[in-house]
Amino acid sequence: MIIVMRVGSSDEQLKKVIGRIEELGYRTHIMYGVERTVIGALGDERGKDKLLTLNHLPGVDKVIPILSPYKLAGTQLKEGPSQIRVSQDCVIGKGKLGLIAGPCSVESEEQILEAARAVKAAGANALRGGAFKPRSSTYSFQGLGEEGLKMLAMAREETGLPVVTEIIDHHDIDLIERYADVFQVGARNMQNFTLLKALGGTRKPILLKRGLSARIDELLLAAEYILAAGNPNVILCERGIRTFETATRNTLDLNAIPAIRERSHLPIVVDPSHGTGVWRYVSAMSKAAIACGADGLIIEVHPHPDSALSDGAQSLKPKVFKELVDELEPIARAVGCETLGARVLQQLRQPSAD
Amino acid sequence: MIIVMRVGSSDEQLKKVIGRIEELGYRTHIMYGVERTVIGALGDERGKDKLLTLNHLPGVDKVIPILSPYKLAGTQLKEGPSQIRVSQDCVIGKGKLGLIAGPCSVESEEQILEAARAVKAAGANALRGGAFKPRSSTYSFQGLGEEGLKMLAMAREETGLPVVTEIIDHHDIDLIERYADVFQVGARNMQNFTLLKALGGTRKPILLKRGLSARIDELLLAAEYILAAGNPNVILCERGIRTFETATRNTLDLNAIPAIRERSHLPIVVDPSHGTGVWRYVSAMSKAAIACGADGLIIEVHPHPDSALSDGAQSLKPKVFKELVDELEPIARAVGCETLGARVLQQLRQPSAD
Amino acid sequence: MIIVMRVGSSDEQLKKVIGRIEELGYRTHIMYGVERTVIGALGDERGKDKLLTLNHLPGVDKVIPILSPYKLAGTQLKEGPSQIRVSQDCVIGKGKLGLIAGPCSVESEEQILEAARAVKAAGANALRGGAFKPRSSTYSFQGLGEEGLKMLAMAREETGLPVVTEIIDHHDIDLIERYADVFQVGARNMQNFTLLKALGGTRKPILLKRGLSARIDELLLAAEYILAAGNPNVILCERGIRTFETATRNTLDLNAIPAIRERSHLPIVVDPSHGTGVWRYVSAMSKAAIACGADGLIIEVHPHPDSALSDGAQSLKPKVFKELVDELEPIARAVGCETLGARVLQQLRQPSAD
Amino acid sequence: MIIVMRVGSSDEQLKKVIGRIEELGYRTHIMYGVERTVIGALGDERGKDKLLTLNHLPGVDKVIPILSPYKLAGTQLKEGPSQIRVSQDCVIGKGKLGLIAGPCSVESEEQILEAARAVKAAGANALRGGAFKPRSSTYSFQGLGEEGLKMLAMAREETGLPVVTEIIDHHDIDLIERYADVFQVGARNMQNFTLLKALGGTRKPILLKRGLSARIDELLLAAEYILAAGNPNVILCERGIRTFETATRNTLDLNAIPAIRERSHLPIVVDPSHGTGVWRYVSAMSKAAIACGADGLIIEVHPHPDSALSDGAQSLKPKVFKELVDELEPIARAVGCETLGARVLQQLRQPSAD
Repeated sequence: MIIVMRVGSSDEQLKKVIGRIEELGYRTHIMYGVERTVIGALGDERGKDKLLTLNHLPGVDKVIPILSPYKLAGTQLKEGPSQIRVSQDCVIGKGKLGLIAGPCSVESEEQILEAARAVKAAGANALRGGAFKPRSSTYSFQGLGEEGLKMLAMAREETGLPVVTEIIDHHDIDLIERYADVFQVGARNMQNFTLLKALGGTRKPILLKRGLSARIDELLLAAEYILAAGNPNVILCERGIRTFETATRNTLDLNAIPAIRERSHLPIVVDPSHGTGVWRYVSAMSKAAIACGADGLIIEVHPHPDSALSDGAQSLKPKVFKELVDELEPIARAVGCETLGARVLQQLRQPSAD
Repeated sequence: MIIVMRVGSSDEQLKKVIGRIEELGYRTHIMYGVERTVIGALGDERGKDKLLTLNHLPGVDKVIPILSPYKLAGTQLKEGPSQIRVSQDCVIGKGKLGLIAGPCSVESEEQILEAARAVKAAGANALRGGAFKPRSSTYSFQGLGEEGLKMLAMAREETGLPVVTEIIDHHDIDLIERYADVFQVGARNMQNFTLLKALGGTRKPILLKRGLSARIDELLLAAEYILAAGNPNVILCERGIRTFETATRNTLDLNAIPAIRERSHLPIVVDPSHGTGVWRYVSAMSKAAIACGADGLIIEVHPHPDSALSDGAQSLKPKVFKELVDELEPIARAVGCETLGARVLQQLRQPSAD
Repeated sequence: MIIVMRVGSSDEQLKKVIGRIEELGYRTHIMYGVERTVIGALGDERGKDKLLTLNHLPGVDKVIPILSPYKLAGTQLKEGPSQIRVSQDCVIGKGKLGLIAGPCSVESEEQILEAARAVKAAGANALRGGAFKPRSSTYSFQGLGEEGLKMLAMAREETGLPVVTEIIDHHDIDLIERYADVFQVGARNMQNFTLLKALGGTRKPILLKRGLSARIDELLLAAEYILAAGNPNVILCERGIRTFETATRNTLDLNAIPAIRERSHLPIVVDPSHGTGVWRYVSAMSKAAIACGADGLIIEVHPHPDSALSDGAQSLKPKVFKELVDELEPIARAVGCETLGARVLQQLRQPSAD
Repeated sequence: MIIVMRVGSSDEQLKKVIGRIEELGYRTHIMYGVERTVIGALGDERGKDKLLTLNHLPGVDKVIPILSPYKLAGTQLKEGPSQIRVSQDCVIGKGKLGLIAGPCSVESEEQILEAARAVKAAGANALRGGAFKPRSSTYSFQGLGEEGLKMLAMAREETGLPVVTEIIDHHDIDLIERYADVFQVGARNMQNFTLLKALGGTRKPILLKRGLSARIDELLLAAEYILAAGNPNVILCERGIRTFETATRNTLDLNAIPAIRERSHLPIVVDPSHGTGVWRYVSAMSKAAIACGADGLIIEVHPHPDSALSDGAQSLKPKVFKELVDELEPIARAVGCETLGARVLQQLRQPSAD
């Protein structure tokens, strides 16, 4: 922690600040500059919250924290990138790409099966689909609940694709664990700390989406909640942040990919569907995401987007999704990633001879 | 809903769009402009989510919703401002100001009692204090839980001040209801819809804080969740939004006061402590809030802010708070509000003869 | 400047960084923390830009500047608040409020005269009106140019109100100086440094509006350009910043008032017309601005806002403006400011006996 | 323009609004909905600013513009993408990539020559370098002025690379035109309309950078100023927008690439140096930009970034830049773009046999 004194602060004020810092168990280190005095407070993080209150003392200008507040999510204890195995064909991180696709919400058995078959045929290696939906309006469709989970399990059985689905209440952990392979924590729940801690008690991978206005450090701090509670399998997800721009639903922050890579060993995937809100921009942004080093994509694909119960405007038709997967391959190769489910693709596409 | 066709879209495209709108149960109304054609879709909100998917159809440029998506929170069904009675001395709305003050977290029996006595003596009519704290870092102090609630109840018993405390898990409703008078929903939980719906089942007032990056419409939609679930006692709270400015912790959006007044009958209070993050700015922004029509304030006051376990940097000392209350009175009067607990003040201050 | 080394950086890296800092003419001061080493670079600001490039050196995590980059705008050389005299009746700062009102654009002789008379009668002590308008669209009305300036001068002659008008090109300084009393620099030109430097060569007061996405420090740095070039008469203006909120045109950042007061001696006025974009919110936000310590207001008033050539939606009718001025008086008094042109008001309103 | 009436507005209010719209020369079209009445105002854009003032009339809820306010920049008059020829080897748009590289500022003859040789050898097809620098602080290095321009011309003569340099004052047009091939308009001047109009009078290409908080529509409106004044050679540039994220200097908004492609025929290049502010992220974001369809890149490259006079922290060393160009080639090919100066590369790299 660095404490900057005001220009013109007195010696007595300085002494009092130093006394208080040492009282909190820190060593002090004083630098007398040309205009101001700066104090370094050396010690571990215990009492850190109290150090921040030093700006109540007369003569203090500002208090600047130095240490990263996350440990398990950072690169200090684990430097190399992590890789998370969701299923045999879906491994995410360290050169392996996750390609998670499917509808926003599970709407019916027919819909989710049609979607699952289509995304598998196109080359996806995991299926997404919401059974519990957090919706801005209480009057919007809120998901099918357990019925939806059963339909997802059915789709997994038929296609072999592991299932990624959202959890919005920690009391549903056991229920969802019975049907799904990856718990998705939505943007609105990134700082639902009760939920994060509870998910730390499971072993299944967690797909943690960045909050609408969360800084990168806050995303890593949210991951730290899960890691510190015992679950090392966290996959981060950039899904767009809220800005002043209105041409797109959110502003996809791809800067976050290299910035997170530098700060954390955790894999990070990108959601270009929410990140743009416009299906016509999804392919372009998917390519950009892979090109700048993302470990995968999570994309909304609906067999009939124009009659979807939610998020139809940003969902791809299966045909467009298949074209996208094909276009992604040379880009993935160019950045040293294994092409998306290439093996699976080969197996799948050969027999159908199309 | 207004559907705007692209310049140069064909008659056939138009026909298809009209067909789809009517299929969804809406009447259409077509306006042929100089450059473009615009379609009005008339009908109630059922199928609204599906209308938004029309931008998948060829020739459609954009789809613009018209109706406000909230009903109970809006002014259509209830025009006059609402007033919410928390206790005999704490009534909020319609010219009555709530002045809620106290520490960020309950830290000890001694601390909360000292705080409660001080804020009461200064003129507050409700006590705030957190027992369950949502903290960005898993390594920060997370609150005393039920022990903290008991201490709050003790403070209430001694001072008569009703207690406002945060809830972060809907399974704690019964527990918190035993000790507190107002449930506070924090900014991070503004869209925790499970929590909102559950709070709709209680009758105690809910203080609903605006999310860090929530638009005003989204705050009202969140209130609608509680109202639609049966609890009419919602108090909104502006507490600063996240912007690019770094001189303050958040940007207090006082524009929200007149903007909400125009859209909703619900009372709205302001939290200048979180809204600025700097205790030195709290008095100025409190006065601004009352001057532009807020129905009250929620302010962090700590007997010893420089040793607070959380948010010390933005907490007022009791002496500063008392000065603030005195300075607020002429401003409240100027905007036609009953001065803050003037009656209480008189009673309290007279005997102590200070 | 503080240089933070990465966790695990080597001694050799440290040595190299220290060498480079000293090469740039700074003394170094090393603090060995538990996890990291932090270096203080002590010396004046020469070479500061070069210090920022230290993050190219291996082992460096980040470089944190300490010194405020402005001097003349700050409180180090001049602590007390400044007061700027625009005319006998219009003095701004140190308890004196400027009340600048008038139409967005000068549209005709008749319009500006009608506006000037009305705002003077209501209690304004300066007249605003644009002759050169920066407009987002090349197809919008761009102002009357010199003709507009002449009309403003005419209005001044009749009413005695000093004239505030926008300058968008430094080659117009001589022209505008002939007709106006205060140069207004609009939000879009806050970092038009050529213009700022040129205005530093005049002696007339400059009303410097905060840029749409300018941090407070950047506003003060922009003021520093004018001050350093020789003109000490700078009045800052908060006029709303751009955020994600769409219910209002901009988000009026009143936090800026106490934050600037702490950092600078310059007076600061508030523009609630642009700060909200909605005339119905202007009165509320004007009161809030004065309550939190602003040194004045600049408000759009148009005799017939529903036929204004620009910004009609945010302009007040004269009648509403007069009511506002009356409502402002007790608030101004409550915060220790001289009521707005009270003397002028008295003189004006008595004879007309209304 | 769509005018939405309030719920419960009266027939008389409706009549008055209709009367006013027709008075302004528009035809009206009325849609009676279930809850509200909506009016379409049909006609061309004359009087558009006045239509926006309709929200002063009683009963009006909001006024929604429909027409895009730009014509020449849009796709209505010219659908296919435009291609702009800067020099024989530097053609931008329609599958041809501009690769503009060089230092932030021209610092000396030696520096700019070394930079020019290095970026040419790596595969750049244009040289950037600032002679007139807009700097936030009046105490920072402001550029070498005409001396800098001469050095740029020297570098062009030696390497054959066309020169891109910033203009900050329209009175410098003739001066800069003598030495440079492309006028760059910086982010801070995107709405310096005097400058834009003056540049419309030249024929040389204009590189127009998006403002720090400019919406995409506003960038296109700024381009329209240049186009409408007669210069069709506008190249847009996405360079990051200002958001709440502090891990990067700006948030590079790559969503803007497909969003602009849909709205405009103008080519768009990306500046990942300013878009991230961190040289370590520049390569990743350059690849992302090309992958999502950008027409080129403008990158800061400095022979010795750790002693640069400005922006060293975001400048690449020549070696890193060369590696980037090599990594870009397969990605460019994957999205159907001609590899960056492949022909030039071949010529250059062969003889030097490295």
